[in-house]
Amino acid sequence: MEIIRPRTLSGFMELLPAKQAQMERMMEVLRRTYASYGFAPLDTPAIEDAQILLAKGGGETEKQIYRFAKGDNDLALRFDLTVPLAKYVALHYNELAFPFRRYQIGKVYRGERAQRGRFREFYQADIDIIGDGQLDILNEAEIPAIIYKVFRGFGLTRFQIRVNNRKILSGFYAMLGLSEKAGDIMRCVDKLEKIGAGKVARLLVAECGLTQEQAEKILRFTAITGSNAQVLSALEGYSGQNELFDQGLEELKAVTANLAAFGVPEENFAVDLTIARGLDYYTGTVYETALLDHPQIGSVCSGGRYDDLAGYYTERKLPGVGISIGLTRLFYVLDEQGLLTESASSAPADALVIPMTADPAPAIALAESLRGAGLRVQLYGEQKKFKQKMTYANKLGVPFVVLLGEDEIGLDKCSVKDMRSGQQYLLTAREAADHIQAALDGDRPLIRED
Amino acid sequence: MEIIRPRTLSGFMELLPAKQAQMERMMEVLRRTYASYGFAPLDTPAIEDAQILLAKGGGETEKQIYRFAKGDNDLALRFDLTVPLAKYVALHYNELAFPFRRYQIGKVYRGERAQRGRFREFYQADIDIIGDGQLDILNEAEIPAIIYKVFRGFGLTRFQIRVNNRKILSGFYAMLGLSEKAGDIMRCVDKLEKIGAGKVARLLVAECGLTQEQAEKILRFTAITGSNAQVLSALEGYSGQNELFDQGLEELKAVTANLAAFGVPEENFAVDLTIARGLDYYTGTVYETALLDHPQIGSVCSGGRYDDLAGYYTERKLPGVGISIGLTRLFYVLDEQGLLTESASSAPADALVIPMTADPAPAIALAESLRGAGLRVQLYGEQKKFKQKMTYANKLGVPFVVLLGEDEIGLDKCSVKDMRSGQQYLLTAREAADHIQAALDGDRPLIRED
Repeated sequence: MEIIRPRTLSGFMELLPAKQAQMERMMEVLRRTYASYGFAPLDTPAIEDAQILLAKGGGETEKQIYRFAKGDNDLALRFDLTVPLAKYVALHYNELAFPFRRYQIGKVYRGERAQRGRFREFYQADIDIIGDGQLDILNEAEIPAIIYKVFRGFGLTRFQIRVNNRKILSGFYAMLGLSEKAGDIMRCVDKLEKIGAGKVARLLVAECGLTQEQAEKILRFTAITGSNAQVLSALEGYSGQNELFDQGLEELKAVTANLAAFGVPEENFAVDLTIARGLDYYTGTVYETALLDHPQIGSVCSGGRYDDLAGYYTERKLPGVGISIGLTRLFYVLDEQGLLTESASSAPADALVIPMTADPAPAIALAESLRGAGLRVQLYGEQKKFKQKMTYANKLGVPFVVLLGEDEIGLDKCSVKDMRSGQQYLLTAREAADHIQAALDGDRPLIRED
Repeated sequence: MEIIRPRTLSGFMELLPAKQAQMERMMEVLRRTYASYGFAPLDTPAIEDAQILLAKGGGETEKQIYRFAKGDNDLALRFDLTVPLAKYVALHYNELAFPFRRYQIGKVYRGERAQRGRFREFYQADIDIIGDGQLDILNEAEIPAIIYKVFRGFGLTRFQIRVNNRKILSGFYAMLGLSEKAGDIMRCVDKLEKIGAGKVARLLVAECGLTQEQAEKILRFTAITGSNAQVLSALEGYSGQNELFDQGLEELKAVTANLAAFGVPEENFAVDLTIARGLDYYTGTVYETALLDHPQIGSVCSGGRYDDLAGYYTERKLPGVGISIGLTRLFYVLDEQGLLTESASSAPADALVIPMTADPAPAIALAESLRGAGLRVQLYGEQKKFKQKMTYANKLGVPFVVLLGEDEIGLDKCSVKDMRSGQQYLLTAREAADHIQAALDGDRPLIRED
């Protein structure tokens, strides 16, 4: 038979078991955290009618989309989870209760040029809260709490959730009579961190046609920093001149007012007037999340408030707020930077049970008993030399090996070998389960901070 | 703006939130059970090189596959999880420890003709144990225990795992000098349940060219039933005539010998000589699983032992054993038959916290405290009339509503309303968490048996 050389397509992540276990732990943190805030899990097809996915059309999306025919159908793979959500909510409107809160962790597809760290198939982990006609500001205030819980769940403390409000920006530019240039201005201001204030000022004059004075006003505005209270106080100085600005400021105050009640420490949150998040879609609060020790990674969790989720599919006004985590890219970057910690749970089992008698029945029963106590247990039945069995246990990375020979059976005990310390204990099945469980409970966080 | 009518493609399952929650519970049972037996989670791309997926080629697969070009690449969506596993093991052979045990729950794609209950995108939930050159029979013996735990985890008791061994069948046909006709014969015998023994006998003569005597011998063999001990004892009567048969009988005895140690009750297991599972692929133990009260559903979990997983991609001999659950179809059928139970966990939250004061801070803090106790809690901040808030709670199906007004705040308590009984309690946050948790722990099984 002719052998075909096996390969995985470039741009498609395929992990080895220990790495996959770490990815699963991240997904589990996301599922648990999102669910704890009352978001319902949602799953939609990866394939949709191409007309529906491309309703907005144009630009990069149309170039990158995987589109193909099957029979008479013009099909495409989803390129994000927002468009399928819009379709879902419009289609099932009558059967949903609003506000509708859903989380979705799923693969999306973009045929981007192959590039290190760029993926053509990648997971997004999204939450959205969709209102029917209206949506209270409390939903926007809750989002930082969810982001905080997710990254704490990953084991991180050195991150910052950065929040702004698009109405404040739009209102401010309106005060300057620059509403029509707001888009161009925000694109320039977005480069602040990269190229510095001086160059941005020159760009604002040269490319956006602003006066020197206008450029200075803008940079004075974006330079407002300090504690949340300080930034809000500085913003008060601009109030009373533009209704949209004042509304945005009220919203921002509502979002920051309850951080303590939500359990978000001040050090993990900042009002940041340079955050804009693109142009058309977002209309209120916007969010980014930075890993403080790794600024080059960029925002690892972003989103915001929008006024019109599903305008392409329904005339109903469906405002919402949502955030998205590019999980595959985040995982790749964390791994590349060596920040993912290996732990007992990266192994496929907590214990490897090795029968040392011809009759495997006692070892089988022991393995079942350990599983009954909540452990992940692999039974090893291969006919190999003892040394090979231990080599296998080491290669798997299991934290414990449990041996059961005639001696142990006679005592109604088993030998539990801690593979990390090398120590061995003679324990009853019950004691073995407790011992192993206790060692696992002290497991390390998923992501390292040095 | 022109409105595009939203739709979901036919043959693609898209569930409403309460149903999706049930599907998630099934997936969680599968993940937990598979993990408890030491299987590592695996995730492979949904898109692969078409040449690799079609290495075996021919038949229905080639017609049904979703295949498309992107740039210079000839791509296709996976149609099962076995071919990607074979590729994975061949590709990553040097980095894996054997036996390699993996579970995978993922979507696969087949462009079948649209038909009620047939899906073009569906989940498979597979486990496989892959050996390097050899694999001990103990792995085959363990599979029924895993199937048993999965279906018990779904809440079922009335199911039967049916086991046979392909070597017994091949050996038996060899005894009759019918090895070359074995495939045709098994296809006829497979109709036993549908058309009865008389018609099968006639088919064996008319279509397979057997003598009347040969047909009778075959039907006498397949008619062997009874307890496991009785069937094994009847099979002993055929031993000593064919080496392959004898080997198959030894394996079958090894698989049945340790059922008790594995915790599988005799009533959930049967040796069934009519089970054959197709032709080429399986070489040893084969498995099917029947829901006893719903025989028309057919096997809900099937698989077997094979000798050569990845022959298209490597010259290494990689034997294995595996089972697969067609999760989407199983879910669809259970739902259609009304067997899925609604439960508190079908709601997106265990409790809906409704602030009754202008300042939401106390309600926010209460919600966070309930989440800290492990509950799924939604905070409801919309400006609606009280009645509308309760209507929303009912529509969501949340089992508890927690109200926090000035009176409660003054007492450092909250009002917990049990939406099923209608009763209301004045409790501290801690008591509320315990009360709600206790009510949830008594939750119902996922699948109903009447």
